[in-house]
Amino acid sequence: MCQLLGMNCNTPTDITFSFDGFRRRGGLTDHHTDGFGIAFFEGKGVRVFRDNRPGASSPMAESISQYQIKSLNVIAHIRKATRGDVNLENTHPFIRELWGENWVFAHNGTVEGVGVCEECHYQPIGTTDSEAAFCRIVSELKEMYPAKPSEKEIFDAVVKVTERIAEHGVFNFILSNGHFMIARCTTNLHYVCRKAPFGKALRDDDVSIDFSQYTQITDKVTVITTQPLTKNENWIKMKNGGYVFFKDGDVLYEIEGMLPEAKPHV
Amino acid sequence: MCQLLGMNCNTPTDITFSFDGFRRRGGLTDHHTDGFGIAFFEGKGVRVFRDNRPGASSPMAESISQYQIKSLNVIAHIRKATRGDVNLENTHPFIRELWGENWVFAHNGTVEGVGVCEECHYQPIGTTDSEAAFCRIVSELKEMYPAKPSEKEIFDAVVKVTERIAEHGVFNFILSNGHFMIARCTTNLHYVCRKAPFGKALRDDDVSIDFSQYTQITDKVTVITTQPLTKNENWIKMKNGGYVFFKDGDVLYEIEGMLPEAKPHV
Repeated sequence: MCQLLGMNCNTPTDITFSFDGFRRRGGLTDHHTDGFGIAFFEGKGVRVFRDNRPGASSPMAESISQYQIKSLNVIAHIRKATRGDVNLENTHPFIRELWGENWVFAHNGTVEGVGVCEECHYQPIGTTDSEAAFCRIVSELKEMYPAKPSEKEIFDAVVKVTERIAEHGVFNFILSNGHFMIARCTTNLHYVCRKAPFGKALRDDDVSIDFSQYTQITDKVTVITTQPLTKNENWIKMKNGGYVFFKDGDVLYEIEGMLPEAKPHV
Repeated sequence: MCQLLGMNCNTPTDITFSFDGFRRRGGLTDHHTDGFGIAFFEGKGVRVFRDNRPGASSPMAESISQYQIKSLNVIAHIRKATRGDVNLENTHPFIRELWGENWVFAHNGTVEGVGVCEECHYQPIGTTDSEAAFCRIVSELKEMYPAKPSEKEIFDAVVKVTERIAEHGVFNFILSNGHFMIARCTTNLHYVCRKAPFGKALRDDDVSIDFSQYTQITDKVTVITTQPLTKNENWIKMKNGGYVFFKDGDVLYEIEGMLPEAKPHV
């Protein structure tokens, strides 16, 4: 199994504090050692860094931490391979252009039987179930809406398409087009919305940060992750079948889902 | 105007020597200061680094040189903006998935009137003529061949599609899917095929390298670039309308083209 990290904000924010705690799980504090990837949106563009070495010891992850890139939307992933070889093309996050935008996707879990749809426009490059599922999502969105619809229509369409895929396994994912972020939970996904008054956060490796020193009173920063990264914040655990649509660091739409125990195949 | 750099080899090769000379033109030895980008194929995957700072002084370009990534196919670009703002989404090379492969494209020159084709599947994310042209190419290839055809058919199709675009301006480009590389010239594109017996090369900034120390006798490395990077090698200048299809460091197919003076609108 893998771990996910997402950030959605109303002001360009440096994810280093969260990313450093997160990537330690790739080989140091946990066993997700089959590569990592991170995508930073910058305007309509996106910077993606991937490595098939463990996040904790990858020199590329080290450089990224040093760059302190600020972004409104970030998706990161550390991988414990369950399907597909350990190589660059199988490393999350995956990207496709949809409606003239970069769409970025990362998945935790395994979904069975999402075969390659040969007549679909978007084809997987690697061999993971995750990329095959992502190609289904963007293919179906494009087919339903040849031109980009409203955000609410996109949210509803993503729910419709992904609920079918989620019937075939564990489908925790984060998806973004650089304007908003959609999170979907089967088993484990937590989020925290940081806003004023900002306080101190204590990471699980006991590194602390005082957000009030780095923020304006109007800032809103949401962090989404498989397991909470800090010990003293109010992380909300998403339920099975739950969806959240984040924009500008806030929850815009939500489907609560059921308790994780409620679905037999989880 | 921008500058292009491509490398196509039969063994994974470190492009640092060429890239270091090339990126000096982004702000040091020349005036291409509006960003740079480089894509390294690794298996079916591709690593892309882009920066909207000058190639010569970008810390990202510096890290890339230090990484000494080895690859069979590399495309790099330094930008002097003629169309489109200086930002990340307008920075070459551009990438799209076609037939389950990463297709990478970089362009030097300006092509007028390549409007956005709204019914085409591939849509530009930024505002450059280059990305609009690339979206036309991949859209038409996909329409002509829903499934991937032979390499010769791909070459012929690329020639057919791009000859039409080239009627509208200066269209020097390099295109690769990680298996082969196609170069097309209107005004300036040169290449050199390095193979045994390997000798010393002297870069235009007087840095030299002895390739015989880094190569095997079977190695073949072709470097394609806007202007020759070394003073003492046999760079072949491509002609207007010329196309070369490189594979494993060798020329596989070629259309010679005419002298650059022969076409009125160049």
